[in-house]
Amino acid sequence: MNILLTNDDGILAPGIAAVYKELVKLGDVTVVAPADRMSGAGHSITVYEPLVCEKLKIEDQFSGYSVSGSPADCVKLAIMELCPKKPDLVVSGINNGANVGINVYYSGTVAAAMEAAFYKIPAIALSAAHEEQTDFKNAAKHCVKVIEKLLPASFGGVLNINIPQLSKGEPKGIKVVPQSTMGFDEHFAKKQSDTGQTLYQLTGGNHRDKDLPSDTVALNEGFITVTALGFDMTDYNGMKKLHQIKW
Amino acid sequence: MNILLTNDDGILAPGIAAVYKELVKLGDVTVVAPADRMSGAGHSITVYEPLVCEKLKIEDQFSGYSVSGSPADCVKLAIMELCPKKPDLVVSGINNGANVGINVYYSGTVAAAMEAAFYKIPAIALSAAHEEQTDFKNAAKHCVKVIEKLLPASFGGVLNINIPQLSKGEPKGIKVVPQSTMGFDEHFAKKQSDTGQTLYQLTGGNHRDKDLPSDTVALNEGFITVTALGFDMTDYNGMKKLHQIKW
Repeated sequence: MNILLTNDDGILAPGIAAVYKELVKLGDVTVVAPADRMSGAGHSITVYEPLVCEKLKIEDQFSGYSVSGSPADCVKLAIMELCPKKPDLVVSGINNGANVGINVYYSGTVAAAMEAAFYKIPAIALSAAHEEQTDFKNAAKHCVKVIEKLLPASFGGVLNINIPQLSKGEPKGIKVVPQSTMGFDEHFAKKQSDTGQTLYQLTGGNHRDKDLPSDTVALNEGFITVTALGFDMTDYNGMKKLHQIKW
Repeated sequence: MNILLTNDDGILAPGIAAVYKELVKLGDVTVVAPADRMSGAGHSITVYEPLVCEKLKIEDQFSGYSVSGSPADCVKLAIMELCPKKPDLVVSGINNGANVGINVYYSGTVAAAMEAAFYKIPAIALSAAHEEQTDFKNAAKHCVKVIEKLLPASFGGVLNINIPQLSKGEPKGIKVVPQSTMGFDEHFAKKQSDTGQTLYQLTGGNHRDKDLPSDTVALNEGFITVTALGFDMTDYNGMKKLHQIKW
């Protein structure tokens, strides 16, 4: 199996190194990842400048391509130019921080997987809930166990997997749960710069979702979450309403 | 009606000025838009640095807030800090270039509207098909005519409106059509930089979708397209498959 591995925390992040070590047990892994930390990159792509691509060897870990762009850029470039063969599977992560609820929209990790799905390649986004010291080695083992369960089902599209905080103990199990769309509570801290400019720093971000059977709730309860994601954003209920308007 | 107006081409772009002139006929308009051109920004947000916010007066046009961030950042900051009242409607655009098919994912214009929907504010993304000389004044008139048709229906969520190339004549009508998920054909042009780095420039991008009743097809045929977009990305068919796995 040919696996393309990317992430949004950058090619030097510990999460990608940890999952690489586990993924090589499943197949040939090509690493193509952003040169820099791209958290919050969402599904951004680079349209005006060319991407700078460098081959790197990270000592005792892996060789790979570093790309001066977003996670989605990396997947495009990997599929079209860098991978020796069209990948059978694209893996993105392990992200440092959960990607559940509407965070899925801001997530470069998920966007990379979504980009692969545009090319009809099955893709898996991996994220670990944020901790002061995330145990990526253990998280990677859990991720690959889930992937091994998934592979025989020959799924298509994107699967979003999140690992709970492991410092609180081993995961309570695996839950297949929908994405929460409840949003979260956040605010901006306002201050003045030394030169008199007004600055706003985004803070907070607690999920509002407390009760529903969703990715955010299950993850907070200590379960590994698995969610299938699609990319037809059409709201078919909303469409019915639009069809009633006399245009 | 309190309207928040943003875009992804930046506060100085002609598209936002053109639609501002039309929108003030419908209500009080607050402009909060990126300081720079943010095309391809997708649903990126700024998490590590504070946003720099400046009040601008653009001569003979409008006053507004310029923000050193993405379109989604602008909407967050506007709703939480800058708008005098919670907006009744968020309008994003007019983008210079269509946002149909999977471009919807890369689009900062649509992401801004989606961000508003997270706050349960109805939102409309406006885009005009790319032309050498886009007639934003005429495009804005068409946009606001569509908005006037929509308002009595008290829609929720996100509506994605695209205006066809107007140099080819007036639009043939308005079509309510789903988002195409067919993707497009694109490639990278490879070259070496003066310093020996390998560079890849993304080019192409013709939509593969030729036949289906979709946003890409209808727009190419010369229709104004209207699509309702949702933000629950859960793939419920995919979920059924996941539930069959013995975890």
